[in-house]
Amino acid sequence: MDRPALITLSTDFGVRDGYVGTMKGVMLDIAPDAQLVDITHQVAPQAIHEAAYILYTAYRFFPSRTVHLVVVDPGVGSSRRPIAAQLSHGAFVGPDNGVFSFVMAEEHVETIVELANPRYRLPAVSQTFHGRDIFAPAAAHLAAGVPIEELGPALEDPVLLPPPRLDITSQTARGVVLHTDHFGNAITSIGRLLWRDGDLCLVPAFRRENEEFARFRASEASVKVAGRELHGLHGTYADVEPGSLVALIGSEGHLEIAVREGSGAKRLDLQPGHPVFLSW
Amino acid sequence: MDRPALITLSTDFGVRDGYVGTMKGVMLDIAPDAQLVDITHQVAPQAIHEAAYILYTAYRFFPSRTVHLVVVDPGVGSSRRPIAAQLSHGAFVGPDNGVFSFVMAEEHVETIVELANPRYRLPAVSQTFHGRDIFAPAAAHLAAGVPIEELGPALEDPVLLPPPRLDITSQTARGVVLHTDHFGNAITSIGRLLWRDGDLCLVPAFRRENEEFARFRASEASVKVAGRELHGLHGTYADVEPGSLVALIGSEGHLEIAVREGSGAKRLDLQPGHPVFLSW
Amino acid sequence: MDRPALITLSTDFGVRDGYVGTMKGVMLDIAPDAQLVDITHQVAPQAIHEAAYILYTAYRFFPSRTVHLVVVDPGVGSSRRPIAAQLSHGAFVGPDNGVFSFVMAEEHVETIVELANPRYRLPAVSQTFHGRDIFAPAAAHLAAGVPIEELGPALEDPVLLPPPRLDITSQTARGVVLHTDHFGNAITSIGRLLWRDGDLCLVPAFRRENEEFARFRASEASVKVAGRELHGLHGTYADVEPGSLVALIGSEGHLEIAVREGSGAKRLDLQPGHPVFLSW
Repeated sequence: MDRPALITLSTDFGVRDGYVGTMKGVMLDIAPDAQLVDITHQVAPQAIHEAAYILYTAYRFFPSRTVHLVVVDPGVGSSRRPIAAQLSHGAFVGPDNGVFSFVMAEEHVETIVELANPRYRLPAVSQTFHGRDIFAPAAAHLAAGVPIEELGPALEDPVLLPPPRLDITSQTARGVVLHTDHFGNAITSIGRLLWRDGDLCLVPAFRRENEEFARFRASEASVKVAGRELHGLHGTYADVEPGSLVALIGSEGHLEIAVREGSGAKRLDLQPGHPVFLSW
Repeated sequence: MDRPALITLSTDFGVRDGYVGTMKGVMLDIAPDAQLVDITHQVAPQAIHEAAYILYTAYRFFPSRTVHLVVVDPGVGSSRRPIAAQLSHGAFVGPDNGVFSFVMAEEHVETIVELANPRYRLPAVSQTFHGRDIFAPAAAHLAAGVPIEELGPALEDPVLLPPPRLDITSQTARGVVLHTDHFGNAITSIGRLLWRDGDLCLVPAFRRENEEFARFRASEASVKVAGRELHGLHGTYADVEPGSLVALIGSEGHLEIAVREGSGAKRLDLQPGHPVFLSW
Repeated sequence: MDRPALITLSTDFGVRDGYVGTMKGVMLDIAPDAQLVDITHQVAPQAIHEAAYILYTAYRFFPSRTVHLVVVDPGVGSSRRPIAAQLSHGAFVGPDNGVFSFVMAEEHVETIVELANPRYRLPAVSQTFHGRDIFAPAAAHLAAGVPIEELGPALEDPVLLPPPRLDITSQTARGVVLHTDHFGNAITSIGRLLWRDGDLCLVPAFRRENEEFARFRASEASVKVAGRELHGLHGTYADVEPGSLVALIGSEGHLEIAVREGSGAKRLDLQPGHPVFLSW
């Protein structure tokens, strides 16, 4: 393996303070050649679901050898366990609070351990910054080649969030807004919707079995959200005029409510959890 | 070439979501040793001119071998072409929407190609995230040594923005505010103004011919903007008292309207496009 | 030395413009293999104390060979000197305006030089962007192995900020809020407080002599701030209910005023400089 160690970071730390830099210092002291890639540090404070979703959209595009460090940790200092998980695509390090639920639903879980071995922590462990004292060292040692079993004892019962709401019948799907992004696109739990010869097939996400459930014409589907009905699902913003509301299949295969060159979330006042209904 | 591949990123994606991280994952999968440097992810959504200006201020300070990836792409999913351009200093990858106009005006354009070769895209190309599926792979392959001609057929007619307004007579220059920066400095199209033995020489920017047009004394020049007249051009904020308005030659050689330890843009309510008049 | 050069960046530049990217381009042109790590670019404009504090929290977690570049520089273009300092842990490059005061108080100062040697600057030095033209080149050359003495003549009298207020008697400590972080924790100058067998020992920070001054029981201490009295010092947020105010020993060993899953700074309207009183 001559490729450099690769570690991503996702936190709710923001970027004003020295917290992210401090974790990077810890990691580069342990794994001097590691490449460090920020996914986000702007998760809303303590927003475990949001972090789980963002990680889910990004991890699959990284090499399989990547270690993903996630520190969104409202339970720091409580009895919540620090963990590392080796999945079929990627390794994951962070608190055992469900933040890895969506990736665990998509991948085969090979090993999960509790980060109990003091040899792979900083010498002094604070009660408030496990990102620096426990998680960053574990991620760096893992990326540098320490076998995951060395980090601590196996753990069989990770905390798992309930999957995002997605109720499917033969002609409908009922879901919720999962995330509103920087552009104001309201991304829903209704997915994955994959284009096949101009039709859409629904392969329900957040489940281990990835099987086609339904197939239908995009032009004949319609979406109800916030009292509005949108006819037809589109593949891109450019299908509608600037300023128009559009029901779109986003880049991850999830239904999005968007406004071309505007904000769908603002237009319809959509927040995470808002119900969305698709029929075909 | 034993130096690592070097790729910069400039987008309007913000840093809350996983979009930037996803592109980095794609690139490091293709070019594992690449160094990735963020220029900005805070371009206003779809603001092509702003991205073009920021890129223009930064690219020349990177090594010539650098690949600059720019994804500000309101036309994603439409017929706008994805391109790569090899210039005399740097290679550039992004949408053909004019975002490279200002660097193309400064450098010799060696080759431009349309990113049409499916071998250098991700296997599945979405209609909404060409940054991930087309541009990031192209930038990584280019940085890893793939010849630009491999990426697709040559293209002779890139979209070019009109250069920023800059009307020059023998004793005056009329321009506009191009950008208001983080500190509140309002940077104008009037440049480049270069110090030579205490005088200023004007070598009009955004043009291929870089020839001295005029030479004058900084102390005898004056600026009219937003109903104010400022006498004398200065080299640094420290020339005036804290809180004072100053007409300054900025670090890129452009006339700036600034307030020492304050915001020139707020003081005079300056936005991009606001007219500015210099006489000497 | 087969480990790559390592340089951190801390500035008040924000991340919208091309300024940070430009400095990175300059550094990678000089030191192509360097790893560049952002500590923060969100220091409030010209806030030297804030930058000094953030650097103080982060530098010790980086390898000793790290070069820390700090550009918070209200005096750019004035007679303030550009400097580099080799300390017992880390090298530091930036303006001589006191921004290194808190790290200099913690470490042995081996050498300080004025960055006067034009060979280690960019060929043309602007009057407004020494980050690009003087500091970034110096940091890169230093990281690439140039001896610090090459950069310019020794300097014996660096500008030092007065240490943050911390008045200690045998049973009290009077200090101030130093920084309010992204989570709303108000971090004070009262520290370092280190846990020893359930008790706390006070080893006054920002002083070269790091000796234990007092030892007391956390449960018997109390804090007065903003008209409130908080009984007992805690080790972690999880000790109190969500929404509760808590006097906490933070991860750096400083007394913090926090609200679990909320903002202590907002709850009590605390700003840097606000007085805080601890008794035991």
